[in-house]
Amino acid sequence: MTPDEVILLSHGAGGKLTARLIDSVFLPRYGNEILRRLGDGAVLPPLAGDPVLTTDAYVVSPRFFPGGDIGSLAVHGTVNDLLMCGAEPRWLSLAFVLEEGFPCEELARICDSIGRAAAGAGVLVVTGDTKVVERGRGDGIYIAAAGVGERVRGLELDPRRARPGDAILLSGPVGQHGVAVLGARRGLAFTTPVISDSRALLREARALFAFGGALRTMHDPTRGGLATCLNEIARAAGARIAIDEDAVPRDPPVEQACELLGMDPLYMANEGKLVAVAAPEAAPAMCAALRAAGAAEAACIGAVVGGSPLVAAASPAGGERILDVLTGDPLPRIC
Amino acid sequence: MTPDEVILLSHGAGGKLTARLIDSVFLPRYGNEILRRLGDGAVLPPLAGDPVLTTDAYVVSPRFFPGGDIGSLAVHGTVNDLLMCGAEPRWLSLAFVLEEGFPCEELARICDSIGRAAAGAGVLVVTGDTKVVERGRGDGIYIAAAGVGERVRGLELDPRRARPGDAILLSGPVGQHGVAVLGARRGLAFTTPVISDSRALLREARALFAFGGALRTMHDPTRGGLATCLNEIARAAGARIAIDEDAVPRDPPVEQACELLGMDPLYMANEGKLVAVAAPEAAPAMCAALRAAGAAEAACIGAVVGGSPLVAAASPAGGERILDVLTGDPLPRIC
Repeated sequence: MTPDEVILLSHGAGGKLTARLIDSVFLPRYGNEILRRLGDGAVLPPLAGDPVLTTDAYVVSPRFFPGGDIGSLAVHGTVNDLLMCGAEPRWLSLAFVLEEGFPCEELARICDSIGRAAAGAGVLVVTGDTKVVERGRGDGIYIAAAGVGERVRGLELDPRRARPGDAILLSGPVGQHGVAVLGARRGLAFTTPVISDSRALLREARALFAFGGALRTMHDPTRGGLATCLNEIARAAGARIAIDEDAVPRDPPVEQACELLGMDPLYMANEGKLVAVAAPEAAPAMCAALRAAGAAEAACIGAVVGGSPLVAAASPAGGERILDVLTGDPLPRIC
Repeated sequence: MTPDEVILLSHGAGGKLTARLIDSVFLPRYGNEILRRLGDGAVLPPLAGDPVLTTDAYVVSPRFFPGGDIGSLAVHGTVNDLLMCGAEPRWLSLAFVLEEGFPCEELARICDSIGRAAAGAGVLVVTGDTKVVERGRGDGIYIAAAGVGERVRGLELDPRRARPGDAILLSGPVGQHGVAVLGARRGLAFTTPVISDSRALLREARALFAFGGALRTMHDPTRGGLATCLNEIARAAGARIAIDEDAVPRDPPVEQACELLGMDPLYMANEGKLVAVAAPEAAPAMCAALRAAGAAEAACIGAVVGGSPLVAAASPAGGERILDVLTGDPLPRIC
């Protein structure tokens, strides 16, 4: 690839230019024995546990933001979805929708990032696809990732297993990813820079896996943030969740930025945090295990309580507010 | 959904409108017990054979064409990729990238088609994702599908197993999908309508699975058509492939259309044909098995021969031409 080369429609035609893209951009950056076979699909080694399948399309704008880019985000997001299902992440597939005219150099940087993120998370990209659409029919690059993992024995994570008395654990401060992307999109210079928390939650998730049945369910509060995530759990569990807003870990630069932007950090996306519902007797040990796994600010932020499914937050001022599910979208294309 | 409803950015925000799309459009059309759990991923039943993973992004234009649409194509293409790896298709994931303003009614029709195609192929859509991009940043709908299958014991399909003397089998006439999409795109009225061959190759593939090791490798000649597919096999095998152009099954309306358009049917995409490399002693029985499985025009079209990897076609007129890999792309967005 020469530095000024750009994506042409022919790069998506399955012929010589597609092969060149695979050989000069993809394989050097995240190639492995399975991907190099370049079949219609990847034949994988046998699984010990039940297979888990997940997928997400990544359309984040801008493609590069403090703390990550669309490539690392695709890997981290997919790995985290597998972890949240109680699975060890193993293999990824990546399908690119590229826009004609997209700089090959930028694609290479994104693939560098994919390679680093996959190696860091211990997963292999084993198969893929590349399509190119005409100028004005895309936005540089969209990435659809799918992931296959292996369910850890003894875990049956399901929000319907949450019951009154269970504790709600959160692994760290909220809103970093949402604010970092929004800041990059609008070209805002925050007093203290906000960096996306995009990362694979391997250590934290494994620390909780060890608690077996006491771990009821686990979710990563991405689009819609902590408030949306808790609402999903409450709805699935058919129970009310009560949180103490004072107990939610906060990141001062995120709080400042949100105040400036008129946004609520509880609704801002995260890409490196998890919410766990824990049996009451195990909750303190689970919170300690999260902290020992590197989530220094992990906290118990509330509990499942009886009543109809909604999320209530006791505010620092002493009142209570209902954290509803948002109808509108304050932040499109956050992931 | 009301008939005039369109996709809004909020449909991709993970909140109320996303949930409504899932409940009113996706679940009624291809819902099942696993998909209804709506987790971050799908926990699947244990696999008997090795897992096989495949992915493709579908960006076909136009979205509806004679014989199919982007929804059925996504299912058939993914199922066929698994079959070509020697696997029984089991589960699919679907990630949508929708453009703001896309009619919900059209999305529903595509999902109807997905539901029918998945039921017809005996696969379940078990997980998915929906993202929405702003007007002018997409083209109505792109679908990224991933598929997981179960490798059939005793099969080790690999183009590197092709050796001189092996026969090349083709399951039917070439070029129908490419011509059907191109005709629909350009609004051409062919004398005899050309219908896409988009379908799941379950019966044909299973008929060949039964031959075990005599089945060296199997491929579906999609983008780039038969010529590109044979070139990929020749390159992987490190051997020359010689075909007899007279032996390639032809569809008269496709031939007429290609003559009119100045295109070569051997380079036109197929979405319901397979190419198999067969051990010489088993080839006649394998061809007969394909015919018995419904591929009435299946034929032996050539053989792997010694020499450097290229594809030579003996022409009806008596000469020989080299079927090269195309550099340009005569037909972007064919799948």
